[in-house]
Amino acid sequence: MSPRIKRIGLMTSGGDSPGMNAAIRAVTRACAYYHVECFGFKRGFQGMIENDYLELNARSVRNIIQLGGTILQSARSKEFLTEEGRAKAAANIKKLGIDAMILIGGDGTFRGGQALFREHGIPVLGVPGTIDNDIFGTQYTIGYDTALNTVVQAIDKIRDTASSHNRLFFVEVMGRDAGFIALNSGIGAGAEEILIPEENLGLDRLLNSLEKSRRSGKTSSIVVVSEGDKIGKNVFELADYVKENLPYYDAKVTVLGHIQRGGSPTCFDRVLASRMCVKAVELLLDGEHNVMVGMMNNRIEACDLDKALKDKPTINKELLRISDILST
Amino acid sequence: MSPRIKRIGLMTSGGDSPGMNAAIRAVTRACAYYHVECFGFKRGFQGMIENDYLELNARSVRNIIQLGGTILQSARSKEFLTEEGRAKAAANIKKLGIDAMILIGGDGTFRGGQALFREHGIPVLGVPGTIDNDIFGTQYTIGYDTALNTVVQAIDKIRDTASSHNRLFFVEVMGRDAGFIALNSGIGAGAEEILIPEENLGLDRLLNSLEKSRRSGKTSSIVVVSEGDKIGKNVFELADYVKENLPYYDAKVTVLGHIQRGGSPTCFDRVLASRMCVKAVELLLDGEHNVMVGMMNNRIEACDLDKALKDKPTINKELLRISDILST
Amino acid sequence: MSPRIKRIGLMTSGGDSPGMNAAIRAVTRACAYYHVECFGFKRGFQGMIENDYLELNARSVRNIIQLGGTILQSARSKEFLTEEGRAKAAANIKKLGIDAMILIGGDGTFRGGQALFREHGIPVLGVPGTIDNDIFGTQYTIGYDTALNTVVQAIDKIRDTASSHNRLFFVEVMGRDAGFIALNSGIGAGAEEILIPEENLGLDRLLNSLEKSRRSGKTSSIVVVSEGDKIGKNVFELADYVKENLPYYDAKVTVLGHIQRGGSPTCFDRVLASRMCVKAVELLLDGEHNVMVGMMNNRIEACDLDKALKDKPTINKELLRISDILST
Amino acid sequence: MSPRIKRIGLMTSGGDSPGMNAAIRAVTRACAYYHVECFGFKRGFQGMIENDYLELNARSVRNIIQLGGTILQSARSKEFLTEEGRAKAAANIKKLGIDAMILIGGDGTFRGGQALFREHGIPVLGVPGTIDNDIFGTQYTIGYDTALNTVVQAIDKIRDTASSHNRLFFVEVMGRDAGFIALNSGIGAGAEEILIPEENLGLDRLLNSLEKSRRSGKTSSIVVVSEGDKIGKNVFELADYVKENLPYYDAKVTVLGHIQRGGSPTCFDRVLASRMCVKAVELLLDGEHNVMVGMMNNRIEACDLDKALKDKPTINKELLRISDILST
Repeated sequence: MSPRIKRIGLMTSGGDSPGMNAAIRAVTRACAYYHVECFGFKRGFQGMIENDYLELNARSVRNIIQLGGTILQSARSKEFLTEEGRAKAAANIKKLGIDAMILIGGDGTFRGGQALFREHGIPVLGVPGTIDNDIFGTQYTIGYDTALNTVVQAIDKIRDTASSHNRLFFVEVMGRDAGFIALNSGIGAGAEEILIPEENLGLDRLLNSLEKSRRSGKTSSIVVVSEGDKIGKNVFELADYVKENLPYYDAKVTVLGHIQRGGSPTCFDRVLASRMCVKAVELLLDGEHNVMVGMMNNRIEACDLDKALKDKPTINKELLRISDILST
Repeated sequence: MSPRIKRIGLMTSGGDSPGMNAAIRAVTRACAYYHVECFGFKRGFQGMIENDYLELNARSVRNIIQLGGTILQSARSKEFLTEEGRAKAAANIKKLGIDAMILIGGDGTFRGGQALFREHGIPVLGVPGTIDNDIFGTQYTIGYDTALNTVVQAIDKIRDTASSHNRLFFVEVMGRDAGFIALNSGIGAGAEEILIPEENLGLDRLLNSLEKSRRSGKTSSIVVVSEGDKIGKNVFELADYVKENLPYYDAKVTVLGHIQRGGSPTCFDRVLASRMCVKAVELLLDGEHNVMVGMMNNRIEACDLDKALKDKPTINKELLRISDILST
Repeated sequence: MSPRIKRIGLMTSGGDSPGMNAAIRAVTRACAYYHVECFGFKRGFQGMIENDYLELNARSVRNIIQLGGTILQSARSKEFLTEEGRAKAAANIKKLGIDAMILIGGDGTFRGGQALFREHGIPVLGVPGTIDNDIFGTQYTIGYDTALNTVVQAIDKIRDTASSHNRLFFVEVMGRDAGFIALNSGIGAGAEEILIPEENLGLDRLLNSLEKSRRSGKTSSIVVVSEGDKIGKNVFELADYVKENLPYYDAKVTVLGHIQRGGSPTCFDRVLASRMCVKAVELLLDGEHNVMVGMMNNRIEACDLDKALKDKPTINKELLRISDILST
Repeated sequence: MSPRIKRIGLMTSGGDSPGMNAAIRAVTRACAYYHVECFGFKRGFQGMIENDYLELNARSVRNIIQLGGTILQSARSKEFLTEEGRAKAAANIKKLGIDAMILIGGDGTFRGGQALFREHGIPVLGVPGTIDNDIFGTQYTIGYDTALNTVVQAIDKIRDTASSHNRLFFVEVMGRDAGFIALNSGIGAGAEEILIPEENLGLDRLLNSLEKSRRSGKTSSIVVVSEGDKIGKNVFELADYVKENLPYYDAKVTVLGHIQRGGSPTCFDRVLASRMCVKAVELLLDGEHNVMVGMMNNRIEACDLDKALKDKPTINKELLRISDILST
């Protein structure tokens, strides 16, 4: 154990995700266990700039493991994008005697952390917390599993009404740049088609698939569309396009929106956050920094932060093939 | 018990609502109990026109009490709006020897039933099944309580992210002509403001209320908007209007949409459907018809169908006052 | 409005129930609205004795409407059962300048309140918060609707496995003296039989009903048993008795237990708590006391506390008849 | 693709688990996609003996992906444990022209499959479906993730009441021989202590831990106990032991029981079942048999059935250490 780490700072940043509170709890409790002080900054980098923080002890985080959102709140700080903003943040951290910062968030958060280290020598460690699952170096990000279940439960409700009315539903889910949510929730929800940013399967394919499924006796269908799908139409235009070309379909649209960010985290996300954050504290105590913790093949491992930021994880295209087979 | 009723027809029509399957089960089981045959028409009036029906016995409805949607499906039949359509439907009913029809749905459904009786002498009985709660003669319609819980649970998730980000959310809920869902879910979700079709409180009031709540230290807020609110702006325009006038607010919009129609019914809706439908069968056996069953003050009572259709229930404006107090 | 009420005390006592936090929020916000100070005692009467309280303002109760349990905690205080204990509690209340106490709980709580008034002249007002629904003067208690849904959702899961295995399940639910939970959740869950404390239908009837249902083709069944059922056997003995007498049944037992007390309150319970507690504060301001607020026929009304305690509400036996019909 | 496979048989056996219907759907749809006939036997091996089966086509499995339980039902067949029983089952399979059997269940199911192959040359393929996660050759079994979430959600409710009353709760979860459910749900639920069959940490440790946690200011605690824990006391005896030795604790017991087997499967279990079962059909078509499909490191792989049965998966003892740190 490195003798130098006496005080660890902690923050959540970027879009909030379910499990961030479980992560805050795990960092705080691991700090208490190892007799390290723990300071939680409010509203991400903005709280560092404004020196807005809480001293956290083991009891401060009781009964939060099950809560969505983040008790430290989150924000996207414009001021931190300036050199002056970062200098202010760094000065506050140093003044507080904080030896290292744990940053819970996505790649924007991690880039901010890199700048803090590069410009001001502050050791940082990243914990991937985002519903989008779009971070290289981990097979799961905190919040992703919960978001999948939120989506699937919402589509289960939509399916009730879709099959009662023989309707076609286009459901837009989150994922501007990555189709993880769409692809996995689409299979989980038994969707007819799944449209993702990584793959433009074309409008013809969509029409053919819907026609074929109708001929095969299906009377209702769900199409899951990632908000950033590559097909060049938004979900409302897609529905209109289908209604024009396949007039027997009564196509409706639902945009799931921000319900996908909230909710009590699943067991998976709570355990993931717990394991990642104990490891995060232990890595810092072992003298590591500028790494991100990730889950690879059921193990929590450190991944170089630069490497995590250089690459993007790829979706498993095998799942598209499986979706095809299952919508027979 | 009237000796004449040997065969009862049953259908669900209009927008589907959670609890319709519990209602189908209760009609079917009550028929079995009283040794009456039960025929279920598919897709509402359309199934009557197409003579598309199922013979239902006590075992046909096992394990459906908990399912959203309707196993008989629902539809809005254009053909039934014509005299020829209704004649076809009536002819099929008579050919099948059906003595009376139980119609589960909203006022469109009941108007269709009135026409069937007036033009063809078919005795009908209405059961109020709609999430909107907008039927005179009953304090609760089947599906309304479930829809309220779906909305409140969705807003709970949105609140997680709203309070993590200090945001203002406009959430559009169903209710084109009636503010029941908005008003009750708004109180249940702890909304700052509730906008309903019955009352135009004006945009100034909204701005004042939001400003006041910000001054009082609130950092996030939810505004629940009925899709048919009277304020003359849709939910996106409202958000834009607020952003323009109160630029410190980061206002976001979520349209809950069709998830409000589906889902497993609450205990309340299951018991309501069960009680109403046993009563429906017993009323027919007692020689009643052209009535609707309703729940008034915890009792199931018959209400003249013409009367139910002539009036609209009024919302409890006291609830607006309570919402005001609670958003202090 | 009475000019004398400047400070209101508040507590939750007895078994906790979902919606108590919504009630605490509503009392606090209504006090803020009417410029009355609000003091919340911890752990019911025990906190009054120990002078353990919080000053509550409108912001203290943010984001709690959706939480189960009670932020003021609850307890059963032995010391308060003694004259000395009550004298201590009363002295603390008077020293704090509290003009009246709002007591959220069941009849034990209200009896304690009566003693406070009788012995020490402290005006009290009761709010019925208990999952058991066993309070005279209100058709619904806070928490009852949530408990019903918790039970029904649990039995839905049990039914999945019951029907996969052709099993008979005995499910014990709460309600030592009152069958409200068993009766309504039993109908909502589609139970074969419902055993409640108010009615001893006898073991023969149970065996007959199970035999009949098996002959009618049912392959799985749920029997809901109130923990205080009158049949003289506990749920395990019942299961054994049935296995002995109807050996073809593979009977299993589940005791739902304390999950019935917790969970996020339903919309119904949140609105009920909100309406009751605004009314509670307004009644005190109007000079009323020694009453309980209750919901009768969708209206919130005051009921004399002595009257509420003298009687017990009766279950609707009509529901037993309906359960019988529906398990055909 | 092997030209010989024209007809595949399918069954679910042993304790049912959520996701079995998603698995049945995936096998059926994959068969339809590859133009293979699919026969589903009812009630596991018993249906094979009684020749009780359904012909399944792509439409037979619509709208079942979200349902708990198994539409094919499950059973433990005593007759199949005899040579005669197995001979009858094998004869029926051969008479139906079934080329291979897909068996969804746990190790009892797979042992039955081995016998069918060894004694009668019927090619079998196993799909791990059990909530216990106790199958070697796969990191996840179908139903395990759902069971974890059911447990965690139940404990969330119990925690509401535990922290409202400063109570200690012992919660018994399933897992007679394996602590997977207890260990992961215990971390997910923020349990104070977790008792599992794989590790006897001793009663002293439990008392010490509870005493320490009380001194550290914790006022309520949850202890998760696997039904087969090694400590030599059942959950009621444990609670009594603690009450005797730490009399300041008001210890209560909840046995979660059969609710853990049911419920709508999580997204994870639906995707897992879908991927495993498409692979299962493809493996058979490729000429493989006597293997089990498993998920190892996010990939679906075949594992020799004999090997899967010879070993038991080991729990990750690192999680016990993490639980310890988190209950600081």
